Amino acid sequence: MDENYITEDSDILVYYKRGKTWLIKPNAKQLHTHVGYVDLTSVINKRYGDCVVTNKNETLWLLKPNLEDYVAKSRRKTQIVYPKDTGLILLKLNIFPGAQVIEVGVGSGGLTTYLSNLVRPTGHVHCYDINPEFSNNTKKNLERVNLLEFITIKDINTTGIDVKNADCAIVDIGDPWSVVESVWEGLKGGGNIAFVCPTINQVEKLVIKLANSGFTNIETVEVLSRIIEAREGKSRPAMRMVGHTAYLIFARKIFPLTK
Amino acid sequence: MDENYITEDSDILVYYKRGKTWLIKPNAKQLHTHVGYVDLTSVINKRYGDCVVTNKNETLWLLKPNLEDYVAKSRRKTQIVYPKDTGLILLKLNIFPGAQVIEVGVGSGGLTTYLSNLVRPTGHVHCYDINPEFSNNTKKNLERVNLLEFITIKDINTTGIDVKNADCAIVDIGDPWSVVESVWEGLKGGGNIAFVCPTINQVEKLVIKLANSGFTNIETVEVLSRIIEAREGKSRPAMRMVGHTAYLIFARKIFPLTK
Amino acid sequence: MDENYITEDSDILVYYKRGKTWLIKPNAKQLHTHVGYVDLTSVINKRYGDCVVTNKNETLWLLKPNLEDYVAKSRRKTQIVYPKDTGLILLKLNIFPGAQVIEVGVGSGGLTTYLSNLVRPTGHVHCYDINPEFSNNTKKNLERVNLLEFITIKDINTTGIDVKNADCAIVDIGDPWSVVESVWEGLKGGGNIAFVCPTINQVEKLVIKLANSGFTNIETVEVLSRIIEAREGKSRPAMRMVGHTAYLIFARKIFPLTK
Amino acid sequence: MDENYITEDSDILVYYKRGKTWLIKPNAKQLHTHVGYVDLTSVINKRYGDCVVTNKNETLWLLKPNLEDYVAKSRRKTQIVYPKDTGLILLKLNIFPGAQVIEVGVGSGGLTTYLSNLVRPTGHVHCYDINPEFSNNTKKNLERVNLLEFITIKDINTTGIDVKNADCAIVDIGDPWSVVESVWEGLKGGGNIAFVCPTINQVEKLVIKLANSGFTNIETVEVLSRIIEAREGKSRPAMRMVGHTAYLIFARKIFPLTK
Repeated sequence: MDENYITEDSDILVYYKRGKTWLIKPNAKQLHTHVGYVDLTSVINKRYGDCVVTNKNETLWLLKPNLEDYVAKSRRKTQIVYPKDTGLILLKLNIFPGAQVIEVGVGSGGLTTYLSNLVRPTGHVHCYDINPEFSNNTKKNLERVNLLEFITIKDINTTGIDVKNADCAIVDIGDPWSVVESVWEGLKGGGNIAFVCPTINQVEKLVIKLANSGFTNIETVEVLSRIIEAREGKSRPAMRMVGHTAYLIFARKIFPLTK
Repeated sequence: MDENYITEDSDILVYYKRGKTWLIKPNAKQLHTHVGYVDLTSVINKRYGDCVVTNKNETLWLLKPNLEDYVAKSRRKTQIVYPKDTGLILLKLNIFPGAQVIEVGVGSGGLTTYLSNLVRPTGHVHCYDINPEFSNNTKKNLERVNLLEFITIKDINTTGIDVKNADCAIVDIGDPWSVVESVWEGLKGGGNIAFVCPTINQVEKLVIKLANSGFTNIETVEVLSRIIEAREGKSRPAMRMVGHTAYLIFARKIFPLTK
Repeated sequence: MDENYITEDSDILVYYKRGKTWLIKPNAKQLHTHVGYVDLTSVINKRYGDCVVTNKNETLWLLKPNLEDYVAKSRRKTQIVYPKDTGLILLKLNIFPGAQVIEVGVGSGGLTTYLSNLVRPTGHVHCYDINPEFSNNTKKNLERVNLLEFITIKDINTTGIDVKNADCAIVDIGDPWSVVESVWEGLKGGGNIAFVCPTINQVEKLVIKLANSGFTNIETVEVLSRIIEAREGKSRPAMRMVGHTAYLIFARKIFPLTK
Repeated sequence: MDENYITEDSDILVYYKRGKTWLIKPNAKQLHTHVGYVDLTSVINKRYGDCVVTNKNETLWLLKPNLEDYVAKSRRKTQIVYPKDTGLILLKLNIFPGAQVIEVGVGSGGLTTYLSNLVRPTGHVHCYDINPEFSNNTKKNLERVNLLEFITIKDINTTGIDVKNADCAIVDIGDPWSVVESVWEGLKGGGNIAFVCPTINQVEKLVIKLANSGFTNIETVEVLSRIIEAREGKSRPAMRMVGHTAYLIFARKIFPLTK
């Protein structure tokens, strides 16, 4: 089976101009949009990259969903981490195929999705969350993208962080200082850690805790991204942008001098 | 051999407070810094995360280098792509273990390093550059991080883009519109493409070309990152920041309607 | 009459928490809001800074409108220049009491309002606009704030720029390069000029024209402002912000070498 | 005497390309620069806007200094408030000819310069500073621009804020909360107040104090400005920018309900 061709069970990102998209499967039979409908049996055996035309004569493009599309369209119980932030987190965690990752606070599983994808096939994402609703939702979202086998979710209150020698860790909870010591135990020496904190007060409390708990190279960054509307002869930045999502804090585990 | 322990041939990122670092091997014998020197034979058999103390009684931490550290310390013939930009590019390219990647314009091999690391072990980065100096430099940088086997560099003028059905492509050259058509040929339907363009004029010319050459979902983004100096009771953003590196352009390959 | 006390004919900015405001006069008899109504006869003889309470027991504060409030509430035929941009323009124009100002393109009279306020009592703003609708609207807006006597509006196509020896000039039209030469004629040597341009293409065309038309010290700036939500223990920037309004271009008139 | 012509005692901003400037008087006899020297007797009777040529054949333009130039070249004992921030402060304070202004913390007199210029001829800036060195320096800077008669500087510890019914106030000191109550006493009802605070911790402490001390419409803003390098066919933002100067806090005086 050639994965370039759409089958009855393929996921499809239907793209209409200016960024309007739908994430569907052909077995939904029909897709109804504000620019008309299409009979989805007609898309089977088409290639990703082909198009269909609605009854109102508008062109819809059939794309293979990126992980970003799945995350954007996922069932969300929480705010998801934005691509601008996710990209830098992945880079700063030094993620690689085979990595053992600790994740505290799964939210809706957005970061979990990216992490599990990149540690394949020999790595693993060890997730901890105290909210069963979040855990179950994350499992469903990971199952949809066939990455469930690369993650495990536990209740941190029950098991504690029971991984050792992890390569890196990501923490996205409201009181991150509360897990700094237990995550330190789970990381290997020099291991990378990242945190996502919406308020500056959280950042301040966290970095003090980190400096006193066996971490160095502590950096706090905020990332802004702006859409540029590039058009012939009238290019300009978009009039609206996201002003803030969260501060990102990065650090590395050390073994403090004790004697 | 336990990779958590430093051997004679290990790479070490020596970290001194406030971000001053050195990338060394113990076989360099001695490390001389502005805060004193250390005898490097003393670091062998220490763990990553341990420290050494200089003759001036300053503490230096022994970290395992991240890819970001190797790239930052690499021999550079060109401007490297910044982490803030690299992170979003990796995410937008939907990179995954096993991916086949086209890279046009290797520069100093920074992006090549990240990409080859993430497509391991079954994927490959097919690089094209017309400058033998850049190609050789990139090969040396990739060899240092043991990723050379996952890339191939060719002269685009000699071979053209001779890959087919690639999952994604990244282009970082001064006249990116000149390769849009040949990269289109190398990509699979729906395949992701990213471009790095310093000037808005390049962006404008490129997006017009893309729209006319079988690409959709064309987006241009600029990413800004700002260091936050988080300190107890006196937190504030850093006084200086990078104002601009490059615009990032993303798109996806389609098969245009033809008659 | 003490201007700190509200009379029947006073302008009042009624302020309800979180920035909801109404610009009214007491002779409107009643003010109806989403948090109840107030009888406006009760506000007469109160001080600016006092409050009234609605029939739903919500407090409304009675403030004296700033020019910014009048401009924000003015009848707008066009996009107004934002405070973040207006402030820098006023500073860069070196505006002062007594200044003679050229304004090309009045829009809705927002900049005209600020400029005429600051050149009082001996200066004057010489406005030029080809759109009678804009001119009339601007006159009405200026009359409301008692600044009409400090401006004159003419049709540039009829009179040309018929001022000489002006201290500074501001141009906010779509094709600013078309008036560069005639504004040059109206300015004194060394005089300051500012332009408002939404697109980078306009900027590029304009700065080339300026450099060839007797201007130096040509600078282009973009100003971004972000609201900070400062609250005890949970301070953070606002999630949304304005991503772009316009580029600002500043220059100074010189007498080019000719012989 | 025509103020467009340069006399022996005129202030001149000598401008060399790309923003290199010198603020001089002709009676300095000679100006030596990295691109040669000029005999300053030659500039007398030239117009502002004319140029001179150095012995190395480089052109220098003779401009009339703006207030911004005087402030940038002033003797500084402290960090000056940047133009991007000053512009918005002037606008938010609703400054006008005739205004009575309270200024607490004069620093190097930058804001004092702009404020006193705009309240002329009938207004006044009532300055308070506890540091005699700052006060004297500010007086010298104001004298240079002929604005000294429009300001008064007192020691707040000696006199307290002894103005009443002021139109607006600006506070730029390290512990602004300490003067909130005394500035409230000096302002008229509805009067505008602005603060300059480098750290977010100061902002948080201040806004709590303001909300409890008879102020409403409390807003915190940060302003960023970025230079755009607009050049034909290769326009882009400047690579470096100022990442942070200070947060700006604005509010308006109210008379709280008391019974």
